[in-house]
Amino acid sequence: MFSDGVLAIIITIMVLEINGHVGNEFSDLIVLFPSFISYILSFTYVGIYWKNHYHLMQSISRINGKILWANLHFLFWISLIPISTKWMGVHNFAKTTITLYGVILFLCSVTFWILQSTIIAHEGKNSIIAMAVGKDTKGKISLISYFIAIWFSFINQWISIFIYVFVAMIWLIRDNKIERRINTGEE
Amino acid sequence: MFSDGVLAIIITIMVLEINGHVGNEFSDLIVLFPSFISYILSFTYVGIYWKNHYHLMQSISRINGKILWANLHFLFWISLIPISTKWMGVHNFAKTTITLYGVILFLCSVTFWILQSTIIAHEGKNSIIAMAVGKDTKGKISLISYFIAIWFSFINQWISIFIYVFVAMIWLIRDNKIERRINTGEE
Amino acid sequence: MFSDGVLAIIITIMVLEINGHVGNEFSDLIVLFPSFISYILSFTYVGIYWKNHYHLMQSISRINGKILWANLHFLFWISLIPISTKWMGVHNFAKTTITLYGVILFLCSVTFWILQSTIIAHEGKNSIIAMAVGKDTKGKISLISYFIAIWFSFINQWISIFIYVFVAMIWLIRDNKIERRINTGEE
Amino acid sequence: MFSDGVLAIIITIMVLEINGHVGNEFSDLIVLFPSFISYILSFTYVGIYWKNHYHLMQSISRINGKILWANLHFLFWISLIPISTKWMGVHNFAKTTITLYGVILFLCSVTFWILQSTIIAHEGKNSIIAMAVGKDTKGKISLISYFIAIWFSFINQWISIFIYVFVAMIWLIRDNKIERRINTGEE
Repeated sequence: MFSDGVLAIIITIMVLEINGHVGNEFSDLIVLFPSFISYILSFTYVGIYWKNHYHLMQSISRINGKILWANLHFLFWISLIPISTKWMGVHNFAKTTITLYGVILFLCSVTFWILQSTIIAHEGKNSIIAMAVGKDTKGKISLISYFIAIWFSFINQWISIFIYVFVAMIWLIRDNKIERRINTGEE
Repeated sequence: MFSDGVLAIIITIMVLEINGHVGNEFSDLIVLFPSFISYILSFTYVGIYWKNHYHLMQSISRINGKILWANLHFLFWISLIPISTKWMGVHNFAKTTITLYGVILFLCSVTFWILQSTIIAHEGKNSIIAMAVGKDTKGKISLISYFIAIWFSFINQWISIFIYVFVAMIWLIRDNKIERRINTGEE
Repeated sequence: MFSDGVLAIIITIMVLEINGHVGNEFSDLIVLFPSFISYILSFTYVGIYWKNHYHLMQSISRINGKILWANLHFLFWISLIPISTKWMGVHNFAKTTITLYGVILFLCSVTFWILQSTIIAHEGKNSIIAMAVGKDTKGKISLISYFIAIWFSFINQWISIFIYVFVAMIWLIRDNKIERRINTGEE
Repeated sequence: MFSDGVLAIIITIMVLEINGHVGNEFSDLIVLFPSFISYILSFTYVGIYWKNHYHLMQSISRINGKILWANLHFLFWISLIPISTKWMGVHNFAKTTITLYGVILFLCSVTFWILQSTIIAHEGKNSIIAMAVGKDTKGKISLISYFIAIWFSFINQWISIFIYVFVAMIWLIRDNKIERRINTGEE
């Protein structure tokens, strides 16, 4: 409930950053274009995390203190996405802003993995969630990709952006493993 | 839950845009009048969507991944209403701002229709929701009206605004089809 | 859920208005004092409405379209409290800001009464909520008080503020009628 | 629900305060460092309160009016954390800002204790929550620590900050008393 609220606020406040005292011509909106693109990317990422978080939380039979802390830890890092997104948009995807964005995505990914591991440790190795997560190939690919993207951001930030979009695509297209398992498990 | 949160935030943050460093005379508030009118219009639209979304979600027996993505897609477009509303209010309903508002309403309508279709495809053609939606006459009228309003916004924006108000009226006055069906279905 | 979200946002965003580029001395905070007092008053009012709304919603056996619209109508007017609060704080309780505040409190009160009446009409005259509301003496006193306060705000705003505080006190001190009835009804 | 919403908004809006028109170099971010540190501290505190609040609310068998008011009272004081955090960050942890932060933490602690006592009075001395809270050693240590920290803030604010961090640590590390009791009570 609390997490849903935090994620809902994070995803929505980002839109407030796409502003500025622009004129009333369509051409005046061009200046907002980088902010708009950043918003789409971050909206997608927070959306993906929300969906994964939703499935993860559904799989919990009983919440304990460790899970609550791991959850807060994850929420802390994802709460930094709006300011990183704004920085990226305001400075037209400057190299440094892309590095920071990658670092935050990397930390979101790491803390989500900690949350997931904490839950699996609590639910047991034979639980539906443990089997659904399995080797967590997508999680590992994401982590490595962010790492590569951070490295590339010092050389050419467009490659990094391409990697961020690519990782988002992986999650958007093939994102039904846990879901399928939970459904099968329930029926 | 998450969607309710996002819609609640969207509807509420718009009020933050009605500000400015106005003096303490009633006459100083006149400058905020266009922003206030924009707020009423957008509050009504988000309210209508919230009500329709609420009935739609009530009708789902089981959520799947496709529905979650269709839902996020719809939430993305509706999240742009606050900035479009602000633009409209700040520039006294200038033609371009009315065009953009229409485009966003059009896209909200399209993505809501996608969400609705995804749910119907999942629930089956004989489900309560499928029968309640039926031919979705109001949805079709809205889409065509937005299209006409966008076209008119290049000529005379007041006609477009009239159309936006008119479409909102249709939904406000005759908005109990799904509701009635669901209730009948349950009793 | 949605209403709870909207009320939670309204009550919280007001705190964002207590700011300004103040120095780091305690004496620099004095300039924020009127904003802080406005915040306390509005926090109390939104809190009272939230509590009454909570009890009202608990009493509903089935939601219908009319109730949802009446609810949105009420939420619209209460959503204007933050900007009115800000205006009041920024201009040190100037007469005009007190008039506007009273008008908004009056309209919140009227629309809450409409919501309440819509629910009672739906639940029936012998329902727990109908009996709990009864003659709604406090509601009537509030309406009349706001009316008097608006009138006084043209002469001396401090009398109006005193009335606003007084009305809030009535609700804070004797606010357990519906609650008691619902509990008795359930047991 | 409402409280969860308020706490979710409080914890998230603080991140909006870490901004400023900074350049696109990493060195430009240094100016935001105090704001970032303040954010971490306040995020942790609000997180701790959310967790304690969550366990407390779980323990209630029936809500009454007094509990709702005590809850609102607590939410009022915690809602001041974002502005105090901002003040602290903007002025690089100046002595006065640390005093104010301590006063607000102290009042949050007092009002949380009032909320807790109201609930225990309602649930009875033999309830799970009454036994779980017990002597409330951590609560007492926190109150005394805040008091000492406020006193030190007039002399050396870094000692006060150290105390704030230290108190947060106590709650982070040993925070499973109520939780354990509730679980035991349920099984």
